[in-house]
Amino acid sequence: MTRIVNAAAAQMGPISRSETRKDTVRRLIALMREAKARGSDLVVFTELALTTFFPRWVIEDEAELDSFYEKEMPGPETQPLFDEAKRLEIGFYLGYAELAEEGGRKRRFNTSILVDRSGRIVGKYRKVHLPGHKEPQPGRKHQHLEKRYFEPGDLGFGVWRAFDGVMGMCICNDRRWPETYRVMGLQGVEMVMLGYNTPYDHTGHDDIDSLTQFHNHLSMQAGAYQNSTWVIGTAKCGTEEGSKMVGQSVIVAPSGEIVAMACTIEDEIITARCDLDMGKRYRETIFDFARHREPDAYRLIVERKGAVPPPQ
Amino acid sequence: MTRIVNAAAAQMGPISRSETRKDTVRRLIALMREAKARGSDLVVFTELALTTFFPRWVIEDEAELDSFYEKEMPGPETQPLFDEAKRLEIGFYLGYAELAEEGGRKRRFNTSILVDRSGRIVGKYRKVHLPGHKEPQPGRKHQHLEKRYFEPGDLGFGVWRAFDGVMGMCICNDRRWPETYRVMGLQGVEMVMLGYNTPYDHTGHDDIDSLTQFHNHLSMQAGAYQNSTWVIGTAKCGTEEGSKMVGQSVIVAPSGEIVAMACTIEDEIITARCDLDMGKRYRETIFDFARHREPDAYRLIVERKGAVPPPQ
Repeated sequence: MTRIVNAAAAQMGPISRSETRKDTVRRLIALMREAKARGSDLVVFTELALTTFFPRWVIEDEAELDSFYEKEMPGPETQPLFDEAKRLEIGFYLGYAELAEEGGRKRRFNTSILVDRSGRIVGKYRKVHLPGHKEPQPGRKHQHLEKRYFEPGDLGFGVWRAFDGVMGMCICNDRRWPETYRVMGLQGVEMVMLGYNTPYDHTGHDDIDSLTQFHNHLSMQAGAYQNSTWVIGTAKCGTEEGSKMVGQSVIVAPSGEIVAMACTIEDEIITARCDLDMGKRYRETIFDFARHREPDAYRLIVERKGAVPPPQ
Repeated sequence: MTRIVNAAAAQMGPISRSETRKDTVRRLIALMREAKARGSDLVVFTELALTTFFPRWVIEDEAELDSFYEKEMPGPETQPLFDEAKRLEIGFYLGYAELAEEGGRKRRFNTSILVDRSGRIVGKYRKVHLPGHKEPQPGRKHQHLEKRYFEPGDLGFGVWRAFDGVMGMCICNDRRWPETYRVMGLQGVEMVMLGYNTPYDHTGHDDIDSLTQFHNHLSMQAGAYQNSTWVIGTAKCGTEEGSKMVGQSVIVAPSGEIVAMACTIEDEIITARCDLDMGKRYRETIFDFARHREPDAYRLIVERKGAVPPPQ
């Protein structure tokens, strides 16, 4: 039995601050329809796909801040996306800001869900690696306040059996951290889905920022190869509220090869026929974890958070 | 104070089975002299740099097997290399097969050492990730019996203060495992040195093996970028005893960029001026481990050796 997932990445151009949820959902539905028309079983939307990338601003007013979050999923404004997915029999990954009431308090997460072809939510992930700052940085044209507006995800890096395979999720900055892919790799992941919003000035150092597109792909290609998994990385891109963001959404094979890439910085569908068995030969040879890994030598990875150089 | 290491990778073409230690050391000395003439402070030799890559054969005779190993370092045949290094005031990394008497038994390791400009051994590493098999694989033109001829390294992934920086070592297959670089990254490594012997048919699957050069670089570039460190990867290459091996030795900057690459499959020196402070801006922003890592989410990396997919 071959296990093929016809997958699409649904890159999005900018979402302005004034764009309504209704308008954005309409764009997502249009992308979903195109993905379906091109034979896709699964469409991967981006991170925070329902709104503009609001962590670029200091937002003091709580009601205004809350307006960027979803209190339920699906909610009245997102239900049409679920309905359309069910009608088309197409699954999807969707990133959004989640406002949860847990333990009697408001909790905010940068979240993604996986929805199967029947419109049912089968998996939920909350972003672990929050980039940026809690406090606004003076002199920056655009802030990056994810550490202010979200808690680190508390669900770990899970995987789910769906689409005849083992599916995993992460979000944006998670893709730069090899631990992300490895924890899923140790659960046999066969396809990692992720959305990202990456401004070109994300570090504030021109020498680093000028390599942003290279680093974007390098991280995903290495994660794919080193864990024998497909990776689908979907951008929100273009110039959004004055902030330029990286495009080049990709579908990466378990070989680390880029097999599809977006070439605009607008709403754009890319697709690939993903054989979930392709990673098998890697997992049975060079990356047979059970035969080759040496966890005793890795203890520092969990015992230490920051780097501690040896004494002078 | 700028901290510059003028580094060289000393790629080697094939070493035949009949080549004597004396002849090989003479080649290493010639490479060392060229590195020095080109302004280098440190030259990185390859893995098992003193002999042919003997794990490609089943060697039943213990005395014959032992002849590929060093019982002391330096020994009579390698002393000239140390003497020349001291005379030239150049440091080096050297890979070799180590035969140790420890706890009353013979122990075999795939080892590397770091030698400072005064000819003193300042660090020793024993390869953790042994590829290949313990038992010969029927039908293979060349065996890959590292698991037969070596124990997994028992010294962990250490780092050493030398050359005004924090230096790390690993060997060949280690470079494909993100844990390798991360454990050193958590100790503030600024330059990772490694040698490799990689046959083009190392997995035995043509679709994977045809990408060997790409995978070689992808692994080192990701390791460099994700840990803000220089990586110097030195090949033994060309056709050795009928086995074709990958060249393309590289020096990789903390940006992940390849800044020097060998273009032959013979003895060849490549050099780069490596600013050890270059990684600093990465470590202070996107890869500020203390601020961004979430070790609680990584536990599986040490709790599990092989992959365990979720139940069907």
